[in-house]
Amino acid sequence: MKPERIAELLALYRRTLVGDIIPFWLKNAPDQLHGGFLNCLDRDGSVYNTDKAMWIQCRAVWMFSKLYNELERREEWLAAATQGMEFILKHGFDTDGRMFFVVTRDGRPLRKSRYLFTETFGAIACAEYARAAGDRGAQQRAKEIYRLLIDFYRTPGKLVPKTIPETRMTQAHAMPMILVATTQEMRRLGPDPLYDEVVEQSLFRILNYFLTPQEKALFETVGPAGERLDSPEGRCLNPGHAIETSWFLMTEAMHRGDKALFKKALEILRWSLELGWDPTYGGILYFVDIEGKPTEQLEWDMKLWWPHTEALYALLLAYQQTKDDVYADWYERVHSWSFSHFPDPMHGEWFGYLHRDGSMALRLKGSQWKGPFHLPRALLYGIKVLEQMSA
Amino acid sequence: MKPERIAELLALYRRTLVGDIIPFWLKNAPDQLHGGFLNCLDRDGSVYNTDKAMWIQCRAVWMFSKLYNELERREEWLAAATQGMEFILKHGFDTDGRMFFVVTRDGRPLRKSRYLFTETFGAIACAEYARAAGDRGAQQRAKEIYRLLIDFYRTPGKLVPKTIPETRMTQAHAMPMILVATTQEMRRLGPDPLYDEVVEQSLFRILNYFLTPQEKALFETVGPAGERLDSPEGRCLNPGHAIETSWFLMTEAMHRGDKALFKKALEILRWSLELGWDPTYGGILYFVDIEGKPTEQLEWDMKLWWPHTEALYALLLAYQQTKDDVYADWYERVHSWSFSHFPDPMHGEWFGYLHRDGSMALRLKGSQWKGPFHLPRALLYGIKVLEQMSA
Repeated sequence: MKPERIAELLALYRRTLVGDIIPFWLKNAPDQLHGGFLNCLDRDGSVYNTDKAMWIQCRAVWMFSKLYNELERREEWLAAATQGMEFILKHGFDTDGRMFFVVTRDGRPLRKSRYLFTETFGAIACAEYARAAGDRGAQQRAKEIYRLLIDFYRTPGKLVPKTIPETRMTQAHAMPMILVATTQEMRRLGPDPLYDEVVEQSLFRILNYFLTPQEKALFETVGPAGERLDSPEGRCLNPGHAIETSWFLMTEAMHRGDKALFKKALEILRWSLELGWDPTYGGILYFVDIEGKPTEQLEWDMKLWWPHTEALYALLLAYQQTKDDVYADWYERVHSWSFSHFPDPMHGEWFGYLHRDGSMALRLKGSQWKGPFHLPRALLYGIKVLEQMSA
Repeated sequence: MKPERIAELLALYRRTLVGDIIPFWLKNAPDQLHGGFLNCLDRDGSVYNTDKAMWIQCRAVWMFSKLYNELERREEWLAAATQGMEFILKHGFDTDGRMFFVVTRDGRPLRKSRYLFTETFGAIACAEYARAAGDRGAQQRAKEIYRLLIDFYRTPGKLVPKTIPETRMTQAHAMPMILVATTQEMRRLGPDPLYDEVVEQSLFRILNYFLTPQEKALFETVGPAGERLDSPEGRCLNPGHAIETSWFLMTEAMHRGDKALFKKALEILRWSLELGWDPTYGGILYFVDIEGKPTEQLEWDMKLWWPHTEALYALLLAYQQTKDDVYADWYERVHSWSFSHFPDPMHGEWFGYLHRDGSMALRLKGSQWKGPFHLPRALLYGIKVLEQMSA
């Protein structure tokens, strides 16, 4: 990558993050009436559903806190994080310490998930907010949520499984993956032997159970000892997910100075791009069956924003660390497709859901799944890497 | 509709049903090893997943029995029904009398649903099979399953709701809808005051809670007293579902000689086609937000086979009963789009899942949701109506 290109990208990333994405959310999401964020936003930012997703509340608090901690000490970012944090602490938790999945606009619980992802986002929201606001209570809360979710994760029978376990035990890549990322955030609060233990165990599972070098693929679902399952579930790849994992692993490898781990992360990145890139229309497919058989997901060939933003950052990091042109070339390919398809020139922010051919499928900017997270995170982290590259 | 057109359609329907669809399933689905049907079939009929969906097992038994009872006493159809029935009776039921949702190839339980749809298909499978095989045990079983599911449906707290009921109570159109159709099948076993009571209550709910004449729409989800919910869930229409309901109601109106009910059914049919027909590419959209806001479903604009087959039969019945050209015109529009997009000229049967523009999204012929049901049912019932029209 030439210095001019790095400078150009840096300017584009800063302009997109601080001039487009964050202002869109700051303008439209904060709920002046009940606190927290209205996360179901239509193309122009208008609200089409007032129910609040706890994933998005937590991720938004994390993001605004992170921007405050890492980019610039803007009071409006801290204020937004504070408003979200208050809503989460007031309305996010059930009596068993677990978190709700969706609540009403005024905070009454609507749904609780059988999975622990909400809790992982709750933990990182509290952890990053604690650093931004110097809030010891939030720090304590982050540690409590983290310990609780690890306890639920490790205790058999504490969560209701989707499949009857006497007949078939499976494990999902999503859980060790998110535990690596969550623990990386928790470490900023100071060391804890539990963190290293959780990361160690998660890395073991990802690398030995889900990663299959013979097929050059990272699978989403495997048997209890990593057995390949001969079913749509067992053949399913989620390239965006695997790409996201690749940079979690790169980050971990850099933290440890572990070159072998970094090399494996690079393989996951390359293999997932090769399996996930659509040769017909370009862009990264949402789901792929490793044998080309039918997927369970009707939306398998859609192009979602987040696999692309994850790939942008993973590729920048890979290129920065290796200076290997294969990553710069892939970066430019993903960049070109992403920036020519996702941004909304009329109302700002990015569309999230395109058809396979790149045409718009859903015009929304925010939903129970899409919030101020994947895109601004990739932009912020990308800025950090680009700054180091141009230094 | 001219007599030549009716004769042409009759020949096409018979050829498609008896020469294409049923042979495809008879050739590829029966599991010689463990009984029942392998329902996950790829384009060429090869099996891509051996897990067995109980919906499909039940619907296939019903369909083969129905063909035997109503079209022709072919031994191979009764044999297929018997093979499915044996698998269901052996592996379909939990100790509480409820049914499993998915089992392994050899019948071990994998998943149980929180809803009662599997039980409704279990009841009609037993009922229709009882008539085909003269099997008193199956008749008794049908009645037991029916009573059990009504008991679960009517007893608060017996099923785990998706949404925390203290915060928000909702009801779904799918349940009274399927109870009308299920009860219509049960009636063939002889009268029972419970049947009339269930249909009466279901009709009341559909017509007073889900049908909204001001908006000319039948909604999928409403509040406990039919309140319109201002959310994607509350604004969501499933035109294919509403169209299916319309002919369940026409059938009920004919059974009762209730002209007012028939008129309402016709309105539901017309309104749903007007709301669901895609002005851009033709075909019936899967989900529509009544206000044009974003749907929750990423696959909202896909074209699925079953809304089209339901519309084909509903329109034939409506035209036969009214001789109003509006239904003949709509029929030809839906027919033309369906028969030019869904049939697979290479391996037979119909594709199930197309993109909005009519191109193929998933090439599968069978899945946990697609089996020998909507299409052969529409063809069989269509043949009956066309025969009456040509008599």
